[in-house]
Amino acid sequence: MSTAPAEAVSSREIRIVLCHTSQPGNIGAAARAMKTMGLDRLHLVNPKYVPSPEAEAMSTHAADVLESARVHASIDQALAGTVFAAACTARNRDLSHAVLTAREAGTRLLQEAARGPVALVFGPEKTGLTVEEVNRCSVIAMVPANPLYSSLNLAAAVQLFAYELRLAAEAPETLPQEIFDPAAYQDVERLFEHLEQTLYDIEFLDPKNPKRLMQRLRRLFQRARLEREEVNILRGILAAAQKRHKG
Amino acid sequence: MSTAPAEAVSSREIRIVLCHTSQPGNIGAAARAMKTMGLDRLHLVNPKYVPSPEAEAMSTHAADVLESARVHASIDQALAGTVFAAACTARNRDLSHAVLTAREAGTRLLQEAARGPVALVFGPEKTGLTVEEVNRCSVIAMVPANPLYSSLNLAAAVQLFAYELRLAAEAPETLPQEIFDPAAYQDVERLFEHLEQTLYDIEFLDPKNPKRLMQRLRRLFQRARLEREEVNILRGILAAAQKRHKG
Repeated sequence: MSTAPAEAVSSREIRIVLCHTSQPGNIGAAARAMKTMGLDRLHLVNPKYVPSPEAEAMSTHAADVLESARVHASIDQALAGTVFAAACTARNRDLSHAVLTAREAGTRLLQEAARGPVALVFGPEKTGLTVEEVNRCSVIAMVPANPLYSSLNLAAAVQLFAYELRLAAEAPETLPQEIFDPAAYQDVERLFEHLEQTLYDIEFLDPKNPKRLMQRLRRLFQRARLEREEVNILRGILAAAQKRHKG
Repeated sequence: MSTAPAEAVSSREIRIVLCHTSQPGNIGAAARAMKTMGLDRLHLVNPKYVPSPEAEAMSTHAADVLESARVHASIDQALAGTVFAAACTARNRDLSHAVLTAREAGTRLLQEAARGPVALVFGPEKTGLTVEEVNRCSVIAMVPANPLYSSLNLAAAVQLFAYELRLAAEAPETLPQEIFDPAAYQDVERLFEHLEQTLYDIEFLDPKNPKRLMQRLRRLFQRARLEREEVNILRGILAAAQKRHKG
């Protein structure tokens, strides 16, 4: 079964659970990060302040995600009904859990989401998730980072995991393709002939040894791959240069 | 030769260029995002406010990155000396550049960084990069996102590209690299100036409307990516075309 990426992400229940967040701006920024990747189920466990103007300001055009956020008193409530949860943490606090990279976590969460609601769980800014909270999750998910400073901003971490979820859901061809109207082989060859003649006319080419230079120029234009209109422009320039030297 | 990922990222010159950033908090957050992934060369083009307490607060433990940031008056200054630059944009404003995903951009930038300094260029929060700024870059890089809302926070975008760079550094290199001796940014820009002047001299360019044609030609040569020697050859040809025929 193949589905459009947005559909694959949004039709499944993927919860972003933020525990004990202390800065409202981070909640707003997380909502924005989620929306850019097509996620909309925000769950807040015991947030310090909600709602707040700061959170709204940081959410920019994701006010809908913020407004529909569900607020819980405990992580148990936030995870109720889920079939799989990944604890996002910079440190590996205990070795009892399987540890996935963010990329692996994206793939895994999407797989598990076919079976029921899943969750990505984030701790508070300063301290991260407690051992007890991690123990309520199925796996640990980590972002590969600088060992000397691995502490991502909360919303930046949400952005990154949400991005990996979206990529995991995506079909190969997503970006708009460059518009490209390639010139035909024979037209490119005629351009090279015209170029060579012009370089003689303007006395740039050494008639004794024209080959090496023409090869360099061929290489340049072959690397570029010329468009039809570009061939016309270049031939126009060559004609203008020839005319000036005859005149 | 195999190097540790952190080393591969930090030993090469990878510039993060933020153009006309309006919110100091975003500059600080971008510095933090860079540091978590082992990047430390921040370049600011005409930032609204710098330094600022807000930027410092958002940088958390990345004050060193912020303090060593270089401030420029123009994008030309920030890109001087680079051999490759990717314009990060959410919208594909014109289809004149090759478009890479963030993931592809990470791999490509790291490859190019073996040849000289490279840059990832970000526009201001509200409007993004202008066409003129994009035209100074080698490729466009985009984050696959929700088509209904694709506007990532600036620092979140920096986080994501920096993360992809780090992951790319962890992947082993496979194919042998093409031998390529790229021209420096400023030499390519000087070539474009010389080209424009020559097109006036040979009466090819319409002085009333030179822009569109020059953009077409820029597009062609940016796509090709010029080598140092090719710039010399092309400037030699231009000089010969400018000289009036003596006969």
